[in-house]
Amino acid sequence: MIRIGLLGLGTVGQGVFEIVNERFLKTSNKEPIIITKVLVRDKSKKRSLQISDDLITENFDDIVNDKDIDIVVSVMGGMEPELTYIKRSLKAGKHVVTANKEIISRHIVDLLDLAKNNKVSLMFEAAVGGGIPIISSIIQILKTNKINRIQGILNGTTNYILTKITREKRQFDDVLKEAQKIGFAEADPTADIDGYDIMRKICILSSIAFKTVIDENNVHMRGIGNVTYEDIENAGKHGYIIKYLAQGLLHDDNKYSVSVTPILIKKASVISNVNEENNIILIQGDIIGEMCFIGKGAGKNATANAVVSDVLQVAAGINDYALLRFDSNALSCGIDGIQNEYYIRVSTENFDQFAKSIDIVYESVKKLKLSYSKGKIFFITEKIASSEMKNLYTKLTQCAHDVFYARMENNLM
Amino acid sequence: MIRIGLLGLGTVGQGVFEIVNERFLKTSNKEPIIITKVLVRDKSKKRSLQISDDLITENFDDIVNDKDIDIVVSVMGGMEPELTYIKRSLKAGKHVVTANKEIISRHIVDLLDLAKNNKVSLMFEAAVGGGIPIISSIIQILKTNKINRIQGILNGTTNYILTKITREKRQFDDVLKEAQKIGFAEADPTADIDGYDIMRKICILSSIAFKTVIDENNVHMRGIGNVTYEDIENAGKHGYIIKYLAQGLLHDDNKYSVSVTPILIKKASVISNVNEENNIILIQGDIIGEMCFIGKGAGKNATANAVVSDVLQVAAGINDYALLRFDSNALSCGIDGIQNEYYIRVSTENFDQFAKSIDIVYESVKKLKLSYSKGKIFFITEKIASSEMKNLYTKLTQCAHDVFYARMENNLM
Repeated sequence: MIRIGLLGLGTVGQGVFEIVNERFLKTSNKEPIIITKVLVRDKSKKRSLQISDDLITENFDDIVNDKDIDIVVSVMGGMEPELTYIKRSLKAGKHVVTANKEIISRHIVDLLDLAKNNKVSLMFEAAVGGGIPIISSIIQILKTNKINRIQGILNGTTNYILTKITREKRQFDDVLKEAQKIGFAEADPTADIDGYDIMRKICILSSIAFKTVIDENNVHMRGIGNVTYEDIENAGKHGYIIKYLAQGLLHDDNKYSVSVTPILIKKASVISNVNEENNIILIQGDIIGEMCFIGKGAGKNATANAVVSDVLQVAAGINDYALLRFDSNALSCGIDGIQNEYYIRVSTENFDQFAKSIDIVYESVKKLKLSYSKGKIFFITEKIASSEMKNLYTKLTQCAHDVFYARMENNLM
Repeated sequence: MIRIGLLGLGTVGQGVFEIVNERFLKTSNKEPIIITKVLVRDKSKKRSLQISDDLITENFDDIVNDKDIDIVVSVMGGMEPELTYIKRSLKAGKHVVTANKEIISRHIVDLLDLAKNNKVSLMFEAAVGGGIPIISSIIQILKTNKINRIQGILNGTTNYILTKITREKRQFDDVLKEAQKIGFAEADPTADIDGYDIMRKICILSSIAFKTVIDENNVHMRGIGNVTYEDIENAGKHGYIIKYLAQGLLHDDNKYSVSVTPILIKKASVISNVNEENNIILIQGDIIGEMCFIGKGAGKNATANAVVSDVLQVAAGINDYALLRFDSNALSCGIDGIQNEYYIRVSTENFDQFAKSIDIVYESVKKLKLSYSKGKIFFITEKIASSEMKNLYTKLTQCAHDVFYARMENNLM
């Protein structure tokens, strides 16, 4: 019998509770798994879930001091008190399974060390990619391969919003409001739309894949809050779709670039057809070549399934996470050295006036495809370095307002 | 130290030899793996591979009787003598890793039983999907989910041919000849083009996923040898691409349908953009929803990587294949009960004459989009059952020759 202490009874917690009770409580051919204590903030809160009162506690000590609990499943969210609870659980000799990407992104090495020192497992498959078993896949691939590239759509909310704008020809704010109404976006959507959620996920994946700790501050991050339907329409005219891409690259000189940016991607690509709340993760291994995983990136069942899968690994005594290493000491090189075409939109009330000052632009970018419509100018640049694009952006913001740009990806799967 | 006896030094065998020697022979932090004997048909054959003469033998007894060999890696191809060698290895208490889909498709239960009875592992990740870790993924998914659908592009050669026809607007035979020239297709391409290779793979995947042994004779199989560029062009006009799809469905009444057929699939789908030698596998789990894997389906490195990954699992004492069960006793229901639109092409020299006899067609299929070009008639039917399409096909072949049809898939990822 495996005994679980569950921290948190939100969406994922309820999903875990249901799967464990429906499939693993009474089993003839597997070891039964039982949730013996559940930590909640407010015991008196009304819940739709059928749960016995004496399972619930508001006091973490009831779980950490319970010698019969083998595994702590931590699905609260936020940094504290969850970080403290995870540390205390590990120190108390309990295995920990968590879905908390914020904590793992910032404390991956400390927490894995703490688990090792206390001879227990720490697993966090649910922290990235929801139902996609991406962390265990990377660990498997690393046994034979070196990984030098990892890319993907890692946020269901923003992919849902971009899909809706594209399909229904609506504006960003309109779709966002609807997504908030139906619970697909948070009341404060900053973490999704400005890229913080994705940044944490790509930090975790790149850290594991490149065997080096990626500092969140080294991630080049741009939001998608100012993508308009016009941009998507323009992209479409050239055969592209706009997606929000996370990317980690490990260069030959052992330097890495990690970024989270809107991109234009060819319609005839796999990524461009990954829609709604689905996630996709592409991995380039030096033996296997390119491999790709697609699945639900969020949601109660997909995430809870990942948590329960981790629990089953722990129960089976398998601890592949102990194979993780972070000793390659790669350094960030920012986004330098990558050449791409860029799509640019600039708002201006006076085209002629802007055209005069655009000489500055022509200096930086020799060949431009240019079109003008309703007070807005749209460019596609020739292939330029990311650093050149940054300079160009600065110049453009000096002679116009509301400048949006996104690089164009022609070689993604 | 893990000692391997390698059966076969063809493309995959060479790949295994290289990966093991380059990455696992001398390792500081892993247990070294060494290939101590290699079985070949002809010792005197000239090889590009650097291999010491005393490693090579023409006699299987040298391997099966060598007490120091822990794992037999079997990558010969064909049914015999490989099947006998695998059985003898298992009986001799050696773990077996194989890439042989023919053997596994027909003998999966016997061989897993034989492994179990001799307390060793039998693994065959490389038998399906090349570099895609699909069998281990299914085993993981089954721990928490019931799987009721598995679909995919499982043959690199035919996907390469269809991609070439589509992109380069060429005819089938022309592309096939080129593919044979560069080694992408066999001299006798029957196994690929008529679907036998895919049939074996979907049998293995469906057997595992549905926990029931799928008899090869219960697979509805149609080849792609009579797909023409015209068909692809016609499909394109309606927004579709032609792909060669393997499909296993488990219905609610515990009956299964397994098929290998050309299909028309919407251009704006993930599958339609899986090109060249890439494979894709989609799985529908009752908790995780739809999940999808893409990667190189064949080739030296991808397949050899899968073999070596299995070897590492065996070396680590992990035997997830022991979890496989085949006790659900589902029965085949053929392809009945599935409703689809169909694309049909019929050749006829005399349109008027055909038009008279086409009344038979109109009886079966009420609404038809019809076009006529250069002695060929193209239809798209309304939604009809597979059995109706079969009847229609019989009638069409009575009043015309060279009839091709493919179902249209609108709901695939």
